[in-house]
Amino acid sequence: MIEFHIGHPDEALRPALQAKIDDLTKPRGSLGRLEELAMQVGLIQHTLSPELRQPQNIIFAGDHGIVEEGVSIAPKEVTWQQVCHFTHPQGTGGVNFLCRQHGFKLKVVDAGVDYDLPRDRGIIDLKVGRGTRNFLHGHAMNDLEMRRCLAGGARVVQDCFEEGSNVLSFGEMGIGNTSASSIWMSYFTGIPLAQCVGAGSGLDNAGVRHKYEVLSKAMDNYSGDGTPLDIIRWFGGFELVMAVGAMLKAAELKMIILVDGFIMTACILAASRLHPEVLDYAVFGHCGDESGHRKMLDFLGAKPLLDLSLRLGEGTGAICAYPILVSAVNMINQMDTFSGADITKYF
Amino acid sequence: MIEFHIGHPDEALRPALQAKIDDLTKPRGSLGRLEELAMQVGLIQHTLSPELRQPQNIIFAGDHGIVEEGVSIAPKEVTWQQVCHFTHPQGTGGVNFLCRQHGFKLKVVDAGVDYDLPRDRGIIDLKVGRGTRNFLHGHAMNDLEMRRCLAGGARVVQDCFEEGSNVLSFGEMGIGNTSASSIWMSYFTGIPLAQCVGAGSGLDNAGVRHKYEVLSKAMDNYSGDGTPLDIIRWFGGFELVMAVGAMLKAAELKMIILVDGFIMTACILAASRLHPEVLDYAVFGHCGDESGHRKMLDFLGAKPLLDLSLRLGEGTGAICAYPILVSAVNMINQMDTFSGADITKYF
Repeated sequence: MIEFHIGHPDEALRPALQAKIDDLTKPRGSLGRLEELAMQVGLIQHTLSPELRQPQNIIFAGDHGIVEEGVSIAPKEVTWQQVCHFTHPQGTGGVNFLCRQHGFKLKVVDAGVDYDLPRDRGIIDLKVGRGTRNFLHGHAMNDLEMRRCLAGGARVVQDCFEEGSNVLSFGEMGIGNTSASSIWMSYFTGIPLAQCVGAGSGLDNAGVRHKYEVLSKAMDNYSGDGTPLDIIRWFGGFELVMAVGAMLKAAELKMIILVDGFIMTACILAASRLHPEVLDYAVFGHCGDESGHRKMLDFLGAKPLLDLSLRLGEGTGAICAYPILVSAVNMINQMDTFSGADITKYF
Repeated sequence: MIEFHIGHPDEALRPALQAKIDDLTKPRGSLGRLEELAMQVGLIQHTLSPELRQPQNIIFAGDHGIVEEGVSIAPKEVTWQQVCHFTHPQGTGGVNFLCRQHGFKLKVVDAGVDYDLPRDRGIIDLKVGRGTRNFLHGHAMNDLEMRRCLAGGARVVQDCFEEGSNVLSFGEMGIGNTSASSIWMSYFTGIPLAQCVGAGSGLDNAGVRHKYEVLSKAMDNYSGDGTPLDIIRWFGGFELVMAVGAMLKAAELKMIILVDGFIMTACILAASRLHPEVLDYAVFGHCGDESGHRKMLDFLGAKPLLDLSLRLGEGTGAICAYPILVSAVNMINQMDTFSGADITKYF
């Protein structure tokens, strides 16, 4: 089994960071979340002058057997079509314009798409299978597949680290993956499934009811050992488990993890059941429109930076939040201090 | 009296804009606020391919006679000190790093600072007086001064327009100006003053109580004619009335107005009492920490893009929100359509 060695950031620098932030030429605390972010990044990087280097957005893609049960409005083929779309040379997908705008490199990983993807698009081939099995009737993946996913996610992040990145956002593409995420959420938060199930990419009320019934039956049929790893593999998608491995590796390497919407929040929730310290490295970008996301964020004590009613996935919410993180780092590096600026310090 | 000629944006293009937004390769509505912003900017600019050109942040600065009553934690001298700070060649103020990050040109306008500001900093000199009179005992400015403020704000915006800008944010620097803003808010919303008064740059509870008592007395002492223009001049700051004139001119010129925190929201509220159409051009950047801001936004039906607990002013909240507006414009211009991308349209 792949192992992750994650520690909490060293707290020793906190007083010095706070003193630096408080001496900037502004009323104390008046830059709100920017000040909190500067503290978090400073602690993670163990420096009074943190920096963000070469952000990357990594999209993990995979298919889900549960789609056979009609839990999504979108047909399965949309997974591979969108993967091709994101990696098209013209870059005209939803995530592409945001990556360009904010200087993110985009990596797309085939974790388990049910299609022979083109080889000329730079898609990273870590295909574990052609979609998971239908978890209504048994586990979605076996133990070996789960381990391959965790290791694969970790490898992708290790590569980013070696390329010089210290901040990553993660996204996903996988028709059916809100179903898997809802079940993870319910198991790992204790919140009843009904409050964890939403419309996904656009189900109507009857569709959501049907999805709930299918997922509820799947949970009734569950016959595993109840450990977090077993829940993860039983209901997980290949792309989701790979994201879990990626997040854990990012925390191990002291990188900043930008968390996207409902699905990526479910992944860091799952990751935190394996290694709670992973949350110290997480910046929650966005509260999405998927029902249940706010509840899951509250459970984690997470305060997302944005609330723009996005529900696209792909990492879009996390990338939109990135300039705020940049502002926090610019604040602590570029603002003058009261003593340096000859301004009356009035508090 | 300076006149503004502001119309609503032409609605004729709405169906075509909606059709374009709905054909982008994403579930309908899944880019939430970005889709709403793209619609708003498309209508304002009357085009299916809107663009944002040369954003500028304009800070109006002025002093307030009411400061004599001890309504602010900060001494009056902080106004001119900060104006010098913003315009320092090294640009190390709070607003400066944000302007650099997001490509904003910064203009600082002396609307009425009680100090002889240096002439070598590029500060735009529209000084109407050395601070307003103390409105506890009478009007803060006379009619002529008010007209000079409205015209001055309009002139600054006209210059920006001629420089090629089509999106502006406005900020302020003026110790005591939350006091003026709170009274405007109370008059123009009907919300009791107690709910409009907050801590400003850092009053404690006793300080807030004292501020409330002073402002309450000032309202009791008011003996004007009760028209919006009279309220504006009686309690207004020079920098606030100049911002009102600037916003009205920006709307007349069909520019996008990025609205900052509590004080700038009070200014667009005041502007909307003169010309309600001004709100069609407003993008609310931020809900600040100043007590009453959320209530004022709700009164206006405004949905701010960010909620980062900022309370610095200077335009910082508006500038932080700018990349979201850029994303909206990039979305409508750069995303592919379903027909063009060979993706199954499943809704």
